[in-house]
This record gives sequence, structure tokens and C-alpha cells, in this order.
Amino acid sequence: MVKNLESLFSESAGRMRRSAIRELLKLTQKPDIISFAGGLPAPESFPIVQLQEIIDEMLKKEGRQVLQYGATEGDTMLREILVKRYQSQGLKVELNNLIITTASQQGLDLLPKIFINPGDTIMCGLPSYLGALQAFNNYGAKMEGVLLDDKGMRADLLDKQVTKLIAENRKPKFIYVIPDFQNPAGITMPESRRKEIIAVAQKHDLLIIEDSPYREIRFAGKPQPTIYQLADEGRVVLLGTFSKTFVPGFRIGWVVAEERIIDKVVMAKQATDLCTPPFVQRIAAHYLQKGYFDKNLAGIIENYREKREVMINSFKKYMPEGVTWTEPEGGLFLFLTLPSYMDAEELFKIAIEEKVAFVLGTTFYCDGGGKNTLRCNFSYMSKEKNEEGVKRLAGAIKKLMK
Amino acid sequence: MVKNLESLFSESAGRMRRSAIRELLKLTQKPDIISFAGGLPAPESFPIVQLQEIIDEMLKKEGRQVLQYGATEGDTMLREILVKRYQSQGLKVELNNLIITTASQQGLDLLPKIFINPGDTIMCGLPSYLGALQAFNNYGAKMEGVLLDDKGMRADLLDKQVTKLIAENRKPKFIYVIPDFQNPAGITMPESRRKEIIAVAQKHDLLIIEDSPYREIRFAGKPQPTIYQLADEGRVVLLGTFSKTFVPGFRIGWVVAEERIIDKVVMAKQATDLCTPPFVQRIAAHYLQKGYFDKNLAGIIENYREKREVMINSFKKYMPEGVTWTEPEGGLFLFLTLPSYMDAEELFKIAIEEKVAFVLGTTFYCDGGGKNTLRCNFSYMSKEKNEEGVKRLAGAIKKLMK
Repeated sequence: MVKNLESLFSESAGRMRRSAIRELLKLTQKPDIISFAGGLPAPESFPIVQLQEIIDEMLKKEGRQVLQYGATEGDTMLREILVKRYQSQGLKVELNNLIITTASQQGLDLLPKIFINPGDTIMCGLPSYLGALQAFNNYGAKMEGVLLDDKGMRADLLDKQVTKLIAENRKPKFIYVIPDFQNPAGITMPESRRKEIIAVAQKHDLLIIEDSPYREIRFAGKPQPTIYQLADEGRVVLLGTFSKTFVPGFRIGWVVAEERIIDKVVMAKQATDLCTPPFVQRIAAHYLQKGYFDKNLAGIIENYREKREVMINSFKKYMPEGVTWTEPEGGLFLFLTLPSYMDAEELFKIAIEEKVAFVLGTTFYCDGGGKNTLRCNFSYMSKEKNEEGVKRLAGAIKKLMK
Repeated sequence: MVKNLESLFSESAGRMRRSAIRELLKLTQKPDIISFAGGLPAPESFPIVQLQEIIDEMLKKEGRQVLQYGATEGDTMLREILVKRYQSQGLKVELNNLIITTASQQGLDLLPKIFINPGDTIMCGLPSYLGALQAFNNYGAKMEGVLLDDKGMRADLLDKQVTKLIAENRKPKFIYVIPDFQNPAGITMPESRRKEIIAVAQKHDLLIIEDSPYREIRFAGKPQPTIYQLADEGRVVLLGTFSKTFVPGFRIGWVVAEERIIDKVVMAKQATDLCTPPFVQRIAAHYLQKGYFDKNLAGIIENYREKREVMINSFKKYMPEGVTWTEPEGGLFLFLTLPSYMDAEELFKIAIEEKVAFVLGTTFYCDGGGKNTLRCNFSYMSKEKNEEGVKRLAGAIKKLMK
């Protein structure tokens, strides 16, 4: 045995923490627990029969090709389809602006890899997606959190904080935002706020990373243009994924950016996993080409809209006074705020006894705040369990209140 | 557009280079070129019919599960099968010692992530697998090359170089070796050499990374024990993959190590891609469980043995005097040495004109050496093309000699 193994670990390894969410997921996988933790899509939405058809045809016609190594940039057929979709939505995207990644999470790992030196600063929302914070943290990024209001990240605070950081010689490398149905807060930025954020980025010449996993899952309100299309060319790196709109088990995402950035991402990815499995990429390409994606997405949206309704109605029915929640126009999550004197970690212990689970809001706050908040997923459980789980959760909150 | 994008890139991005091999692969994908570049397995070995059967059953029985997110550690069924295989081969491996990665390349990225700070030293063979060198380089590792002889990495030189490095306060973080059918040199370490390398590692208390992608593809000679099983417990990190023995298009590999290391790899992987696609992991598990893996492996070995025969015989038939080559007992590659006055890069230009491609040996030398060497893959092309390609290559060499 190596005698002093701990001394061999890198500074990066020293910074790593097991994801609270991933660890909680283990707890919550017990069958009698109603889990609002995790961000799992509804398994009943998985298009099993269509996949059988696609895979059968694909193996017959292209088996040797899709089982072989593929290009680091990704499957050309899939990339071309994605580029055309973006173009049809008015985004300026060419083939050289898009690389396929092993889901969005890999994009969130490769981007700090090419941008962050240990000690560099980045801007993110308070709260922000935990997986992004983790990835940035592993590269030694210092995260500066910017409070959200009901329109998303506050541009006035962003400007103020960035100005201060620049004065301290700590100019941020980028601004990380999730403008649609933000994870975990469920907030969507209106076009006006997007433009304000862009104006701050332009003023200080900052890059924006626009993480967009939920954008296509909208059940209410009007779609907002992406920050990518509102901003000047090359200002924004856009991340997309099939994890919530198709299946997460294929691990397919993509990064859209100007060519010099994509070039670096390709180089970083080469040494990281050579390529995302070509097999699942080509399945996704056929799934889109056959029109199944759009057809099924409508069903997913309807399903989640109903599940969200049930959850919000259950909140209204069961929650004691003093508890508030977001009512998102899309996505997979509701964000709850308890009275400020309460601690969601204490609630979690009682909730697990009551057989219901959620994610502590504090895991999404890079400044350790949000102690009285929690995130509830409404996409994974059935409507019946959504109601029953909220009932249990309300019971746990009432217990803690006493 | 961000005005000074270049200044935003990290030091890691500054170190990145596009893989010469991946770039060459593009050149060599032209249909009229006979390519000995790349390390592509034979597409005729892909078990398409068995995969149709497995996937069809799997989607019916476990569709919802395998299309969902999975554990970062990997699919438990697959991990258990791999652990049992290792145990049956006499290796001390438990479930907590094994994590599934997005092919071996991800292991080669996560290991420097948890071990390397910029400027740290590691030991590797002269030559060594390019993808590993690239990954180490991206984390800022300083690579110290150790010459090989016909038994692999020279233990006497390793000891000498490590002693010197320690005196310079540059103790290496680990020794990277590919003991079976080394890529690119094709050399296999006999048990005695493995033990010598272990002795040096023990003397200086160093970790060993044993990269083992080809181990199961042996057509001649006697299997040697892994360094993992010969060494003291916890000394060795072992990397395995299905890319050469099943299909590369699923991107499935694994890392075996003591629990504290696996723990860190799990944390690093969480933020890197959350999990390797559960869908393809479960296919692999069924493929092994149904006995297809072992049955088909015998066919792959026989196929590659024949292709290697053809290539070696063609070398004997066509190569001019002064050119030498390895005759590996397994794996996918032959390594050629030209007379020392010749430059493989000049040869490459002529070879492409003659419609044959290879990989420059120098890409595998961390010290820039090996200018008169080249690597030829014999697994991908048909036997006929292997002969025709060698004929063309010999023609190109003769041209350059003039």
C-alpha cells in the first residue's frame, strides 16, 4: 500500500465534495419514500417502442458505423439536425459552433477546464444548479453569488459586484445563468432582464454561460428569446441537453459557442473521453429526424403541467401559513421557502421519517445561504404521490414548527 | 463578441493540443486510403445480431430503468460481473474497488484530476499511449520518459531517474505503464520485469497506474499476471475497457483501485458527467452474462492473429533492409523502426500520396524522440488491405531512402 496516499491527492481532489444530491438520491431510492429530490424525468415518458424501432433499423443499416469510435465533435447527423433546429428558432449557429458532450454536465466540466485557473472568479445566481457549482469548484473557481428576484439574476447587483471585483483585480471569467425555469428557483428571466444582463456583460466585456436544460418544457407563459440570440455574436456559450426532453440515460448534451471556444472544448474533450458514445448519438438523431421528438415533447409538457398543478394545489391545500413557493412556467422544480427561523436540514430529518424527501436549498447557494429553502421535483413521481408527498411534507413542517 | 477571448483561456487550455491521431484519422477516413493509423477494432467483429436480441429484451423488461439517470459508480449488475471476472482471475477486487468510466480515456482524465497539480512529475514509458500523455499534459504534469527494452519499461532506469527526481524534490506522483502489448511498442512485460517495476515503486513508495486495454487479446505466448495482483494491496490502479474486446462505440471502461482512490474518482466523475450512459452499461452486462463476450472474444483473437500474420509476412516480403518491427504477442499494433537517419514525418507525406497512412512514432514520445518510428494498426483493415498497405508503405520508404 502507498504509505501516504492522502499526500498524493491534488488540490482539486481536496476541493471535491460528494454531491449532496447524489448522496441523497441513494437515501431516497428506498421504495417506500416519496422522493421530490433529484431531477429525474418521468419514466412513463420514455419512448420505449419507438426506440426499439429505431435501434433495430439502425443496427441493421449502420451497425458497424455506430458501434465504432466516433468524432470528438460528435455525430455529424445529430449535429446538423440540432444546428437546423436552432437556425429555425432564429439562432445564429453553424456546424462548427456545436459540439456534442456526454450530457450538459460534461459541458459544465469542460468549460471551467478551458477557462478557469485556480482562484479565478465567476458569477452565478443565488441559488444556482449544484452540478455546475461543483464542477466550477473542482477547478478552483471562486464563486460570487448574485441574488435573484422574481425576474431572475438581478442585473443591478451583478453590475455592482462585478465593478467591485474588477477594482479588486478579480475580474470574473464568466457569468453563469439558467434563464429558463431556473434550477432550483424555477424563475424565468423576461426578455428585459436578459437584455440587462447582456448589457452588464458588454459593459465589463464578460462571457455569459447560458445553461438551458429545461427551455423546451414550458407549460405556461410566452417563450423568451435565448440570451445567445439577444447578445452580440460570440458573447454567449449555450448549453443544451436531451436529459429532460428525451431520455437522461443516453447522456447527450451539447455546447454552442463561437468557433474558437468550440475548438478548445474539442481539444479538452479529446483527452477526457475521446467521444460521447456514437451509438446513442445516432439514436437521438433518428429520433429527431422521424419527428418523434417534437411529438413526444408535447406529451411530456402536458404530463408535467398536470403534475405541477397537482403539486401546487396540494401545497395550497396542506401547507401551513408562512411557507411560500414558486409557480414556475416550466421545468421540473418548485422552490419552497420556509419561515426564516426554520432550518430545512432539521426538516429533512423529520421528512425522511415521514417518508418524503427533497433537496436542501442551501446546497444551491455558493455562499451557504438559503437555509430555510428546499427544492421539490414534480416530474418523477405520479400525481397521486405528488399529492401524498406534499401532505407528508406539510406534516413534517408542522411538526418542526411546534 | 468578447474582446480579448484569448486572455480568458486557462493555463490548461493553453497546454492543450489537438490529438495528432484524431486529426490524422480525419485524413485517413478518405475511402481510397489504406489506414494503419488509429486503433480501431475490426468492424466485422461487432456482434450486431446479439445486440439486437439483448437490446430488444432489455427495453421490454428494464426500459424505464436503463433510460433513466444511473449511479455515478456505474451499473451495479455490470460492476458485479466485472468484479467476479477479476476475482476468478485471482485479483483481489471487491465492488467498492471498481467504478465504470466513459471508456478508459475518462479514467486517464480523472486520475490526473485527483492526483496532479500543475508542475507535478509522473513517469511513463518512451514511448507511451498518446491519449494518456495528452490527459496528463492537460493537468500540467511534467512527464519523465523511461526507455523500454524488449521486456518493457526498464526498471533500472526507472529507479535511477526516480532517485534523481526525488533528490531534486520532484518525487513523481505515479508510474504509468501498459504492461500487455504496449501501445505503441507492442511489447509485453514478463512477470520478472513486472516485479522489478513493483520493487522500484515500493522502494520509493510510488503508485502505479496499470493501463490494460489489450490484455485479453493475446494470440501467442503465456498470459502474464497483472501488476495489480503481483503488487502489495493498494499500490496499483488498474484500467480496463470494452473498446477493443466488445465495441468502442459504447464508451465503457473501468478503474480498479483501493477504496479511497475510487471514492475520489467517484467525486471527480460526479461533476464530470454524472454517470456513464446506463443504457449501454446494461447492454454490456447482459452481453457478458449471456456468455457472448467470451465466445466472441475467441473469434476476435483469431481474426487479429491472422491479420497480424499477414502484416508481419508482408513486412518480411516488402520492407527494405534497415527497417525493423516488433512482433507482439497480442493487441492491435506493430511498431516500426526506420534507419536512424530517416524521419517518419517525411515518410508520412509520401505515404499519403501512396494512399497509405500510419501514426508518427514521435507523438508517443514525451521527450520528442522516436522520429524514425511509426505505429501500424493491423486490426481495422482486411487482410488483403493489410498486405496491399504494407506494399505501398514499403514503396514509400524506398522512395524516401533514395
